[in-house]
Amino acid sequence: MSERDSAIVLLSGGLDSATVLALAREQGLACRTLAVAYGQRHSAELAAAARLSRQLGAVEHRQMGIDLGGIGGSALTDTSIAVPDAGGTGIPITYVPARNTLLLSLALGWAEVVGARHIYIGVNAVDYSGYPDCRPEFIAAFSRLAQLATKAGVEGEAFSVHTPLIGWTKSRIIQEGLRLGVDYASTVSCYQATPEGLACGRCDSCHLRREGFAAAGISDPTRYA
Amino acid sequence: MSERDSAIVLLSGGLDSATVLALAREQGLACRTLAVAYGQRHSAELAAAARLSRQLGAVEHRQMGIDLGGIGGSALTDTSIAVPDAGGTGIPITYVPARNTLLLSLALGWAEVVGARHIYIGVNAVDYSGYPDCRPEFIAAFSRLAQLATKAGVEGEAFSVHTPLIGWTKSRIIQEGLRLGVDYASTVSCYQATPEGLACGRCDSCHLRREGFAAAGISDPTRYA
Repeated sequence: MSERDSAIVLLSGGLDSATVLALAREQGLACRTLAVAYGQRHSAELAAAARLSRQLGAVEHRQMGIDLGGIGGSALTDTSIAVPDAGGTGIPITYVPARNTLLLSLALGWAEVVGARHIYIGVNAVDYSGYPDCRPEFIAAFSRLAQLATKAGVEGEAFSVHTPLIGWTKSRIIQEGLRLGVDYASTVSCYQATPEGLACGRCDSCHLRREGFAAAGISDPTRYA
Repeated sequence: MSERDSAIVLLSGGLDSATVLALAREQGLACRTLAVAYGQRHSAELAAAARLSRQLGAVEHRQMGIDLGGIGGSALTDTSIAVPDAGGTGIPITYVPARNTLLLSLALGWAEVVGARHIYIGVNAVDYSGYPDCRPEFIAAFSRLAQLATKAGVEGEAFSVHTPLIGWTKSRIIQEGLRLGVDYASTVSCYQATPEGLACGRCDSCHLRREGFAAAGISDPTRYA
């Protein structure tokens, strides 16, 4: 297998990106996983990302850091802003400015260095309702940028940005992941998990996750605080 | 002046971005400057960026960090790759994978948090010959991405990415900067400057800079090692 058949998979430690890794592995791709410390409120999800990378057979896992220099602006990176309970409308305060642009840029840089031509990210239709950088038109714009931004792109090599979950419900994501052997007890979805990875059970992310397991008719393995 | 009339100016500590800051200030914009530590070989340019920000009247300067996790792939971030002397052809080994995408993404995130709608970056036609992410088509693709990636963009606020130097020769950049009072002795262009900011005089960047001063008929204030 050439490096062109390998992939960079963005791994947050949550349910969605773990499923994406399993799907990329099912395609026969050698996967390098990338977790990004961008100042999120807790590190339990970063530990989960490293664990899931091993469990699902990635060839390499790396963690990169972004120090946003205290710009704040999001409940996920600014501890002075409370994480709201589930059920708000509009773009939520948990939106992190330019987050997916940054994550994809880091994945693109690593892809270019190792010669990988596939990038996987676990954006999906449920987040799509709230976060601008989870929409198909954002992904299309980033794909175009990737061709123009890179030495490989200029030399005629195409990068593919894959978003296999983008049209899936949470329950379908869970069902596909279980078929592929994802251990969801290892994933951490909560926006404000404890250092041990215990979930709050109240935030948007916990709410979506719980509803997903219920809709799939599967017992929820989440450990709540 | 509303925040919409303010700008984020990417500042490397080099000659080009210092001139960009002076040009943005001439437009009457309140400027926040952003220097990014992405693992470059020396920190003299980061110190220069902070100094230039003060000299040119920015309202705030921030430094953000990106830890690329040792992915290497460039002579600017991997000390095992030597910085070549000037005069190569093609895309040089000093190209940093996805660098300008990352820099613009950080600027976009900060712009969104503070409500600024202008982003300035000092890409220019001389770099354009070598680096893919200094070309007008790259900037256009990033501008489109910025609208789609952000809460502000979705809500109908346009971001403008300004590249005033993109078609300028180095000598024109220097002449305009001197007209606006830029102290070029404070700038550090060299790819491998000493910790004190002394230039090597041999790399591509030193070469372009020296030719620019010569073409402008201006005495070169660069301090060489």
